[in-house]
Amino acid sequence: MSQRDNTQQEGATQVAPYRFALCVEYAGGNYRGWQIQPEHNVPTIQAEVEAALSKIANEPVSVVCAGRTDAGVSGTYQIIHFDTYAKRDVRGWVMGTNTKLPDDIAIKWAKPVDATFHARFSALERRYRYLIYSAKVKPAVLNKGVTWTYKSLNVDAMREAVQHLIGKHDFTSYRAVGCQAKSPVRDVREFNVYREGDLIVLDVRANAFLHHMIRNFAGVLMTIGAGEAEPVWAKEVLEAQDRRLGGVTAPPFGLYFVDVKYPAEYELPVSDLGPYFLSC
Amino acid sequence: MSQRDNTQQEGATQVAPYRFALCVEYAGGNYRGWQIQPEHNVPTIQAEVEAALSKIANEPVSVVCAGRTDAGVSGTYQIIHFDTYAKRDVRGWVMGTNTKLPDDIAIKWAKPVDATFHARFSALERRYRYLIYSAKVKPAVLNKGVTWTYKSLNVDAMREAVQHLIGKHDFTSYRAVGCQAKSPVRDVREFNVYREGDLIVLDVRANAFLHHMIRNFAGVLMTIGAGEAEPVWAKEVLEAQDRRLGGVTAPPFGLYFVDVKYPAEYELPVSDLGPYFLSC
Repeated sequence: MSQRDNTQQEGATQVAPYRFALCVEYAGGNYRGWQIQPEHNVPTIQAEVEAALSKIANEPVSVVCAGRTDAGVSGTYQIIHFDTYAKRDVRGWVMGTNTKLPDDIAIKWAKPVDATFHARFSALERRYRYLIYSAKVKPAVLNKGVTWTYKSLNVDAMREAVQHLIGKHDFTSYRAVGCQAKSPVRDVREFNVYREGDLIVLDVRANAFLHHMIRNFAGVLMTIGAGEAEPVWAKEVLEAQDRRLGGVTAPPFGLYFVDVKYPAEYELPVSDLGPYFLSC
Repeated sequence: MSQRDNTQQEGATQVAPYRFALCVEYAGGNYRGWQIQPEHNVPTIQAEVEAALSKIANEPVSVVCAGRTDAGVSGTYQIIHFDTYAKRDVRGWVMGTNTKLPDDIAIKWAKPVDATFHARFSALERRYRYLIYSAKVKPAVLNKGVTWTYKSLNVDAMREAVQHLIGKHDFTSYRAVGCQAKSPVRDVREFNVYREGDLIVLDVRANAFLHHMIRNFAGVLMTIGAGEAEPVWAKEVLEAQDRRLGGVTAPPFGLYFVDVKYPAEYELPVSDLGPYFLSC
């Protein structure tokens, strides 16, 4: 099989494992984020996915993800990879694993990949959507799947503001103080703001994101949308290169990880973005 | 106040209570339906709403609803009324009560009404939407807020089928065997089927509905959409006046109670239908 061709083998009896890429959808509202927290006994997506895959593989499985999402953040196209000696077909990894997962986590597809594929390091670009529900009363439906504000928001002002954030910039002002990325520079390639039903969607695409970057964008944009600051404030915050000037970090609940791009050679299925109830 | 004018009073010292109409939104996935089940210790929407209102009123409050929804069914515009001697303003009944409710239940508005208003008996018309998610893999996001089918559905065939259900008919074939309504005749005034993102929405308006009527419609329509029966089957089932010919009752999870119409004199706020993430 092709995924073994590039694998270094030590001696003739040493067989390289199979590597698979999987797409995971999850509603993050009930979890303490993606990453396993060994020192805390808390529910995480990674823990659920690894437990389910390990049952199907009948051996311990560890996964690597494209982007570790925070507590409360959801995903429609989180990509992971793992290595295994278990021989299962794609249907087994998808349908079998889904029978072992809770209702709010699902494997969408699986694909064999060669050992050069890495869910995190092979990724060329990520995309997130942030869903804001603006209404006088909190939402009962999908209450952990949107961020609610009682303020009414001016979408045009928000759209004007995001123009200042597009491009390659030092995003120090928009990253968490504890962010461990080496460089604060990221390339924001697209940033749209639009209405969808009673929701306002922030839709942003970049090579990669810093910790809390989108939630910090959302905090500034909601302030601007509420008329409490001018659109140019998004630029002033950016240029200050000081997190303390950036205002509040918006809640995690409306955030969805919706796409990751990899080199075409891996031929992974295209994301239909989502979440699926949005019409675009 | 006007709501006291029509109330029969026994003796001069007997003061009539205030009557309020409230709009309730709820995600029904975690509840055993609207109605309190005194003999079972199970969570119901009515129990939560009455407990919250009673705290705000500082006296026991009992409510009457426009339509008792089944276990798993949601609502965006469930109307209730209740009588109370407690003097609270509209803001108190809405914002105060919301602080006492779980995240998946919310009071959207409150309005004083006179004693002629009855949430159930004054209702002229109801409207429901049924959300079907058609995809190979179960949804993780909003998993208790849609009905999933792995089959792909032909919306045109479903649209042709609903034409047979519009109008005033004996819906014996589409009501639960245990349905306690005196008459099986209902007037279906509008029935639309459309796509919204990856969802298929059944949108139906009638003077009133029989028990399981929409879920039985959905069962037949999903069978037709999957190509397992012709659109005319919806008519054959209808004309047979025999529930046993009607196929399966579809799951409750995609069903939303989205509107109730009352006489204009009560001046209740117009429903924006919903659920709010739909663009129409």
